[in-house]
Amino acid sequence: MTKDHLVIFTPSGKRGNFANGTPVLTAARQLGVDLDSVCGGRGICSKCQITPSFGEFPKHGLTVAPDAVSQWNSVEERYKSKRGLIDGRRLGCQATIQGDLVIDVPPESQVHKQVVRKRAEARDIVMDPATRLYYVEVEEPDMHEPSGDLERLVKALQDQWGLRDVMGDLRTLQMLQPALRKGKWRVTCAVYQGEERVRPRIAHVWPGYYDGKIYGLAIDLGSTTIAAHLCDLADGTVIASSGIMNPQIRFGEDLMSRVSYAMMNPGGDREMTTSVRDAINLLVGQISAEALIDRELIMEAVFVANPVMHHLLLGIDPVELGQAPFALATSKSMTLWAKELDLDLHPDARIYFLPCIAGHVGADAAAVALSEAPNQSEDLVLVVDVGTNAEILLGNKTKVLACSSPTGPAFEGAQISSGQRAAPGAIEHVEINPDTKEPRFTVIGSDLWSDDPKFKEATLGTGITGICGSGIIEIVAEMRMAGLLDPSGIIGSAAQTGTGRCIPEGRTHSYVVWDGTAEGGPLITVTNLDIRAIQLAKAALYAGARLLMDKMQVDTVDRVVLAGAFGAHISPKHAMVLGMIPDCPIEKVTSAGNAAGTGARIALLNRAARREIETTVHDIHKIETAIEPRFQEHFLAASHIPNSADPFPLLNALVDLPDVSFNQGGDGAEGGGRRRRRRG
Amino acid sequence: MTKDHLVIFTPSGKRGNFANGTPVLTAARQLGVDLDSVCGGRGICSKCQITPSFGEFPKHGLTVAPDAVSQWNSVEERYKSKRGLIDGRRLGCQATIQGDLVIDVPPESQVHKQVVRKRAEARDIVMDPATRLYYVEVEEPDMHEPSGDLERLVKALQDQWGLRDVMGDLRTLQMLQPALRKGKWRVTCAVYQGEERVRPRIAHVWPGYYDGKIYGLAIDLGSTTIAAHLCDLADGTVIASSGIMNPQIRFGEDLMSRVSYAMMNPGGDREMTTSVRDAINLLVGQISAEALIDRELIMEAVFVANPVMHHLLLGIDPVELGQAPFALATSKSMTLWAKELDLDLHPDARIYFLPCIAGHVGADAAAVALSEAPNQSEDLVLVVDVGTNAEILLGNKTKVLACSSPTGPAFEGAQISSGQRAAPGAIEHVEINPDTKEPRFTVIGSDLWSDDPKFKEATLGTGITGICGSGIIEIVAEMRMAGLLDPSGIIGSAAQTGTGRCIPEGRTHSYVVWDGTAEGGPLITVTNLDIRAIQLAKAALYAGARLLMDKMQVDTVDRVVLAGAFGAHISPKHAMVLGMIPDCPIEKVTSAGNAAGTGARIALLNRAARREIETTVHDIHKIETAIEPRFQEHFLAASHIPNSADPFPLLNALVDLPDVSFNQGGDGAEGGGRRRRRRG
Repeated sequence: MTKDHLVIFTPSGKRGNFANGTPVLTAARQLGVDLDSVCGGRGICSKCQITPSFGEFPKHGLTVAPDAVSQWNSVEERYKSKRGLIDGRRLGCQATIQGDLVIDVPPESQVHKQVVRKRAEARDIVMDPATRLYYVEVEEPDMHEPSGDLERLVKALQDQWGLRDVMGDLRTLQMLQPALRKGKWRVTCAVYQGEERVRPRIAHVWPGYYDGKIYGLAIDLGSTTIAAHLCDLADGTVIASSGIMNPQIRFGEDLMSRVSYAMMNPGGDREMTTSVRDAINLLVGQISAEALIDRELIMEAVFVANPVMHHLLLGIDPVELGQAPFALATSKSMTLWAKELDLDLHPDARIYFLPCIAGHVGADAAAVALSEAPNQSEDLVLVVDVGTNAEILLGNKTKVLACSSPTGPAFEGAQISSGQRAAPGAIEHVEINPDTKEPRFTVIGSDLWSDDPKFKEATLGTGITGICGSGIIEIVAEMRMAGLLDPSGIIGSAAQTGTGRCIPEGRTHSYVVWDGTAEGGPLITVTNLDIRAIQLAKAALYAGARLLMDKMQVDTVDRVVLAGAFGAHISPKHAMVLGMIPDCPIEKVTSAGNAAGTGARIALLNRAARREIETTVHDIHKIETAIEPRFQEHFLAASHIPNSADPFPLLNALVDLPDVSFNQGGDGAEGGGRRRRRRG
Repeated sequence: MTKDHLVIFTPSGKRGNFANGTPVLTAARQLGVDLDSVCGGRGICSKCQITPSFGEFPKHGLTVAPDAVSQWNSVEERYKSKRGLIDGRRLGCQATIQGDLVIDVPPESQVHKQVVRKRAEARDIVMDPATRLYYVEVEEPDMHEPSGDLERLVKALQDQWGLRDVMGDLRTLQMLQPALRKGKWRVTCAVYQGEERVRPRIAHVWPGYYDGKIYGLAIDLGSTTIAAHLCDLADGTVIASSGIMNPQIRFGEDLMSRVSYAMMNPGGDREMTTSVRDAINLLVGQISAEALIDRELIMEAVFVANPVMHHLLLGIDPVELGQAPFALATSKSMTLWAKELDLDLHPDARIYFLPCIAGHVGADAAAVALSEAPNQSEDLVLVVDVGTNAEILLGNKTKVLACSSPTGPAFEGAQISSGQRAAPGAIEHVEINPDTKEPRFTVIGSDLWSDDPKFKEATLGTGITGICGSGIIEIVAEMRMAGLLDPSGIIGSAAQTGTGRCIPEGRTHSYVVWDGTAEGGPLITVTNLDIRAIQLAKAALYAGARLLMDKMQVDTVDRVVLAGAFGAHISPKHAMVLGMIPDCPIEKVTSAGNAAGTGARIALLNRAARREIETTVHDIHKIETAIEPRFQEHFLAASHIPNSADPFPLLNALVDLPDVSFNQGGDGAEGGGRRRRRRG
């Protein structure tokens, strides 16, 4: 036909011939070009914006004339005047093909948009959420051909969107009839299609074209903190992030003490279930308020958690996880309704739980595996997710091992005298001048250092309230580098260290980081007990990593990924100074933030990722630290903080670790002096 | 092989050759013989009882030697001593084949047992419920091969029962671990497999072999009464039947007044939803108490209801059903969890709703169609289900029409001065002597007539409390035949009728059926207002039936099935005398009891019946009475009670209908006398 025109879409490069007058959206659909639309080409949603290009395209051997696309029409005009439209943009459902054309689909018009992650080595997330919006026009009822309103809606979804065999939730049925009539037989549906063999289900119906957004939550349910990201389910944007303490702490600080609580107290598991569900509801309220959204618009949530937290949230007594053989009730992924868990989201919100790897290696470890993908790594990577329980993965594309190590809550700022959750006002980054022994720091909520003249003004709103998990790691490492701390973990006295910041505290000493008492603020110190807690935690972490290395029969790893609690990135250098991780070139140690939370976010935004991790967990070989004698050996050996004599050549080449030694019992007169070793 | 033996199973006639020593159960399974087992051949459940036959079988050319089956073994001995076993019976999993054999499978050992219905023309129900019990032995957990307890249970169900891809409800997960350990890795599961494309789900887990029963409820939710049958899900036995008034009556006696209530009162629909759910819970409590069972053992319920009741139970505002085009929210069948409807059964009990036919012809009509199967009838059958709304079906295997007619609650004993629900003490059958005008009657709970000397003693427990729906039909018809009532529906005075039982009541007369006031009991009368209510109701019923006959272009039907409210069978003769149904040979009029409830019971006990009715409803052509002018014409023409001049030749040939006429206003002096017409 002479009226056929060649149309090339960029960036996909897909091309085809189309009859004169074909709408661009229609052409895109026929070619399988990734061009979004919620309203199905009715000029309402504006999701199908495209940019026609004109002029010469020598690469394609094509000249695009100015009239190769139809004139700007009244629908586009109305849309532009009401909502605005970037110059050069057209609505793909209105603009028709009138000649050979090159058409660009901007990223925001793509259904399967990429959500770019900040870290260079992390893969991007391709948007493919389980819940999506569909606008449809529904046939009106006819007394002589009786059929339910739902059946005509289902038919419209099939005819207009190709969705097959859609079902309605009960609540959908309850809201359906008024919505159809209010919308004059036009409605927008939220349809959930999460599992492959399960029919899609309508989870909500809005009258007419619903111009708003729907949201999903990625929740990392930790023993000490619960962290949530609220995401836009259309483009993956993180709208708000928030965290809350896990109130189960009052039943026991670590996992085993909570399991004990359940064993010793009839109904104790139910108490803990109720308390964590309440806290999650509180967190949902908090994050919805922060984002100024209605919590009923949260249509999905993905949970990652260690097995004990996972079972307690589900209402399963965790008692079996407290004793060999540590049998999970289920290790598979699960999809439930929010109502089944008493969660105050959209009542029919779908809750997806990532699979668990084993009795001590949970859905949080699975989420870390999804985020960091050690099973796709060419080199041997060690991933440590630092929390009250550390999840440790070691492997590459041939094999991945995993274990969990009971570090305790110190790395999350708990069991630390001035510790606190990562929240505005918490000390996050610290430097101690090795000569003056004076500290400077930043707090969450401001980028300024404490010695900046504007610091006080900048932190007026938050104050300086305590030390968060990554802050405590930095302080202890800085104290060690500044010669305030000896390798056995003893803080020197004022006399030994030459700074009045080292003050007596019982038979030991504390280091004063910040004294706000003059202004009614806190006295923030690091005590020798704090140091002990960090030593125990880092020894457990290191022992777990070493155990996996033994099992893998390696002495070194190619790179290390440090993942940690919400809101705080762990400093690789400081982690190495503490001896948390095996010796490794510093440039090969990266900080991944909350990798478990990121894994939850990936599973929230991309259905294929759920299938991927459900498969991957089967290939991860799990090591049970609790029954490995070598774990205890490694743990005992790792409790001291490295010095220059330790087998950490790469660390020792990087930083000075003063060979100091302080007498624990005395008041500061005795004890070793301080020697600095300078590299050439 | 010389060791092969020929085995013939009866009654199926299935036969095959089996190696010496093969257990009978194994042979039966290989041949597809319908032999039950819950424990899977472990000698626990005794469901696989069979009877070997010995001697000559000339029909099969076979001689069965006494040693053709293995010796009685210790498992059978133990079972017999503990539980008893009928002589000659063996356990199919223990008895092995030692020679050529003829083996009878008694009905109670068949999975797909037949539940025989009382009426000759009704088909039997073949047992194939959606929820069944399976006993399994589960692998113990192994720390080195971590897998969840659920996954090992699912594997056991697949390996031992061939159930594929089973899922667990959340509650199953919550109870699973203790059950497995208490049962020493042996559990009994209730598995629900109701829908074809949906994976089976474990709804309950019992430790060890569960020796009890599981139950299902078939519930007919009517406008005036709610009737329930509690059934054993293994053999279909009706364990208990019970009924309760629908408390929604306080919001309006008929459907349209309830819809109006919802329209006029914000939240009125929710009020009615709550009230009916509460009533159902009360009914469940009542029926469980009567049957002495735990209500949590009720694992399924099937509901049938008219569209307004259906929507209100589901929590859907019925407002659209009150105005053309009478659009249903959904017409399809549905499966929900008991919890979604706030029903206090097993929390994961599945609730199945039959499909609706149209906006005024609901799941109750579908249930009647399932029970009475007009679509499979060779002759033209009229099925009328008498309730507050009558469901009427007319058709044969070529075509079925359906409509619904607003008869009002009179046929259920409501709006009748001495009316009551069908319950012990209610007058059910009545005869009036045409010469003495004296009545005699029976009450529900006793078979004795009231003129029997032992009647008083027999009814001491119940008393005589009122008149139920089928009782009122009989009384009015008997009054008409005894000349106490003229064709226009006026009760004669004492002077006109010659009996002191006709007493003045305002400007009309009432007939005294029973005077219990001397003993503190009720005065049970039929008032002229009662007669009016019955006239209106029967006219609506007749008009609906006539309308369908018009649409079918017929003047007569081959047979009539009368279905009615719970617990009371309608007398065909009396229904005909009242003019409820078209003229028909009396032997072709049968009473089917609560056909809607029976349809619910069929759907409860047989999964295929659910699929069948889901298909059948599409082929039923629905007539909307509300917009048919001819319905009004028929209604007006049908309000009087037949006399000998009416076009009911078959009726007139059957009974005497005295040509009396009473003056409505007077005190009895005037008015026509009485003439009896005798047949030769």
